[in-house]
Amino acid sequence: MSGKVAGTLLHLAPGFGNAFANLHNARKAQSGVVNVMGDHASYHLRHESPLKGDTVGISKAISHWTRVSDDAGQVAGDGAAAVTAARGLNGQVATLILPANTAWEAAGATAVAAPPAALRRPSPAMIEAAARALTQPGAALMVDGRALYTDLSDLAAKVAKKTGAVLMAPFFAARTRRGAGSVRLQRLAYEVDLNIGILADKTCLVLLGAARPTAFFAYPGKPSLPEAAGAHVIELCSIDMDCEWTLRALAEAVEAEAVTLAPQDHVPLALPPLPTGPLTLEAVGQTIAALMPEDCVMVNEAITSAMPIAVATATARPHDMLVAAMGGAIGAGMPVATGAAVASPGRKVLALVGDGSAMYTLQSLWTMARERLDVTVVIFANHVYRILHGELAAVGASAGRNVARMFDMVEPKLDWVALAQGHGVAGAHCATTAEFNTAFARAMAEPGPNLIAVEC
Amino acid sequence: MSGKVAGTLLHLAPGFGNAFANLHNARKAQSGVVNVMGDHASYHLRHESPLKGDTVGISKAISHWTRVSDDAGQVAGDGAAAVTAARGLNGQVATLILPANTAWEAAGATAVAAPPAALRRPSPAMIEAAARALTQPGAALMVDGRALYTDLSDLAAKVAKKTGAVLMAPFFAARTRRGAGSVRLQRLAYEVDLNIGILADKTCLVLLGAARPTAFFAYPGKPSLPEAAGAHVIELCSIDMDCEWTLRALAEAVEAEAVTLAPQDHVPLALPPLPTGPLTLEAVGQTIAALMPEDCVMVNEAITSAMPIAVATATARPHDMLVAAMGGAIGAGMPVATGAAVASPGRKVLALVGDGSAMYTLQSLWTMARERLDVTVVIFANHVYRILHGELAAVGASAGRNVARMFDMVEPKLDWVALAQGHGVAGAHCATTAEFNTAFARAMAEPGPNLIAVEC
Repeated sequence: MSGKVAGTLLHLAPGFGNAFANLHNARKAQSGVVNVMGDHASYHLRHESPLKGDTVGISKAISHWTRVSDDAGQVAGDGAAAVTAARGLNGQVATLILPANTAWEAAGATAVAAPPAALRRPSPAMIEAAARALTQPGAALMVDGRALYTDLSDLAAKVAKKTGAVLMAPFFAARTRRGAGSVRLQRLAYEVDLNIGILADKTCLVLLGAARPTAFFAYPGKPSLPEAAGAHVIELCSIDMDCEWTLRALAEAVEAEAVTLAPQDHVPLALPPLPTGPLTLEAVGQTIAALMPEDCVMVNEAITSAMPIAVATATARPHDMLVAAMGGAIGAGMPVATGAAVASPGRKVLALVGDGSAMYTLQSLWTMARERLDVTVVIFANHVYRILHGELAAVGASAGRNVARMFDMVEPKLDWVALAQGHGVAGAHCATTAEFNTAFARAMAEPGPNLIAVEC
Repeated sequence: MSGKVAGTLLHLAPGFGNAFANLHNARKAQSGVVNVMGDHASYHLRHESPLKGDTVGISKAISHWTRVSDDAGQVAGDGAAAVTAARGLNGQVATLILPANTAWEAAGATAVAAPPAALRRPSPAMIEAAARALTQPGAALMVDGRALYTDLSDLAAKVAKKTGAVLMAPFFAARTRRGAGSVRLQRLAYEVDLNIGILADKTCLVLLGAARPTAFFAYPGKPSLPEAAGAHVIELCSIDMDCEWTLRALAEAVEAEAVTLAPQDHVPLALPPLPTGPLTLEAVGQTIAALMPEDCVMVNEAITSAMPIAVATATARPHDMLVAAMGGAIGAGMPVATGAAVASPGRKVLALVGDGSAMYTLQSLWTMARERLDVTVVIFANHVYRILHGELAAVGASAGRNVARMFDMVEPKLDWVALAQGHGVAGAHCATTAEFNTAFARAMAEPGPNLIAVEC
């Protein structure tokens, strides 16, 4: 949210292991992160102490950049190099391993991080080829990164309007500007079958800062790539290249800068009334859409409950949506909401989290209470890892008694109000639409962390 | 507890990451474990899907044995090889990586795990040298593994009695038989300064299945090895060798089999009265010692609160003590208690856990409720990661305002009764000795999971 490199302080190998899943998500989100991993004093590593572990091995399994700084005099320079690495290639995970003795031996001079190396750019010929391709029938321009949440999105919309291409975005996009005033774009879905349908009429796909659409998993008899057969896929600018320069060059090539966007090129403001009737996901989405304040940060890890919320909030007040589990590792929702709130003072953060996901990292609630973060957590308490039923069906299997027991969260059901209270966060449980309308309105009106569990 | 290899089923890289810290503890405890780590279908790995990660890299950072089984026809044989590896060298971590397509392609014939390779044994000359050394003044025999919780402990005691050596055990021993009827032995401490004192008069140390005593961390001006200067350390039998054969050979060499142990060679039964007065750690220890049933399994992750409990229960009814964080990675207490309860039907499991440790893995409470496990969790709610203050002091530093804030768990305090209730476990909070006497007596009398938080 701040555009700055994040920092973590982690213990040697197993401590780093506790962070591994969310570093995987950070890596896939192109979040620049510097991890400082402690290690034993270098002279202690020849002995078999309990905590000794493969610090370099686990770091290399997830970090783009790993360095052991085993001389206190070099720590400043190595730290600066870590920051440079984290800022490089549009955001990387950099891990600096510091043996304990570097903390008590004499440090060297301070160091300042050098700017990262210039990003690669496509050739003029590539730009021209992409520009021509976008004017063909059935062309689409898929963008990601800053083109989804900065002024660059207007420029991308102009390119699409000028060329007649469809403007598209991936499903797994770390940050997207949504709601009133955002540009219209077609977003891919999670399910490969839906994406096959969405891409069926796209004879040419120009990728600008976006990865090639890929099925989340392989499934028997289904393709790994959902693109149409024979589609021309132009990987104009990979995610680690200079996306902004490329978009501007492409806009110049198609003479898009002079295009004027019309009102219908942007999403209008259209707020639903507060719902009545049964507490369904659609009703929850309507309440959220009606009440969420302008410029809030919506962190989305609702998994199987997410789609009705996304539909309902498409025309809500302008907001940013963050996909927490960018690497598909569930459990990032509340941690990402925590980080977003720290980085965005004055903005309401709304974390939409499935109950299965929330159980990975419910300790985040205490951090929210401790730091008095303005986060409202909505837990979708369907008492099941429902996504697993979907994935099992997608491979052509179904859950028997034992599998269902491994997927569900009943006997006993979790009491989310008690779990919130235990961590020092006020909680409410809603079984009716009226209860949710009241609880959510109060949460939007009052600052500070709170949790609302919806039973639907 | 069962002596059998354990099994886990983990998702690809980040899912395995979530297990990393406790696999580190399992590795250091020499627990035989087979991990089955799923991966994408082999033909899907050429594409950049969100969950794609370095499965082999993270596995090799913690596993003794890693294999990718990328042909469904070979999975049975590879699975059998994993079991063999996990059973080898007195217990290893073996990880079998299964691409998803091996689940829906045709399997091959079933396979049976071959016995692991024979364990290495010391030479007759080594046995003789160790036997001679043990008869010298200041000699000690340090044992670990099965010699701490089976009949082999009597044999080790006979060797010590016959030679005049002191019988010793490491601080980090996975399982130890304690209480009435167990053999007397001198256990090392956690702190390097205490171990320097304990080992000061040991001129010769014979290690039989035990690792060389090593400081948990390095500290400025303190040695990594706490042994006395000039001490003769004989590594007779390393932890991955044939410890039982070696002990029997050593006993034969010193003619210890005919030794008769006297009553004073074993720990007597001496139960304290139920305490009165303020709720101190000593009082909690007395209550536990007075009421814990025969043959219970005590899982110890009380960290800085552990010592008074260990002292009080030394002469309690016979029990097994498991050190959860064998690799020093905190958060293993409730998971180990869960596993011990599954593996030991009919035995009461008592988990002694610091509040800081418990927060790593409090989700275990739900599993205890789900599986109706007979576990009593005692949380030592001192509201601080007190061990960190101790470690900071040991390197000669002290906590300022910001450090103290990172170490403590106040503002807000955790409500353990609510946290337990949220997971479906009955909880009690005790601020007085009388309350703890009542709550603990009830927990010992009734089966099923429950949690007692003590404020001391």
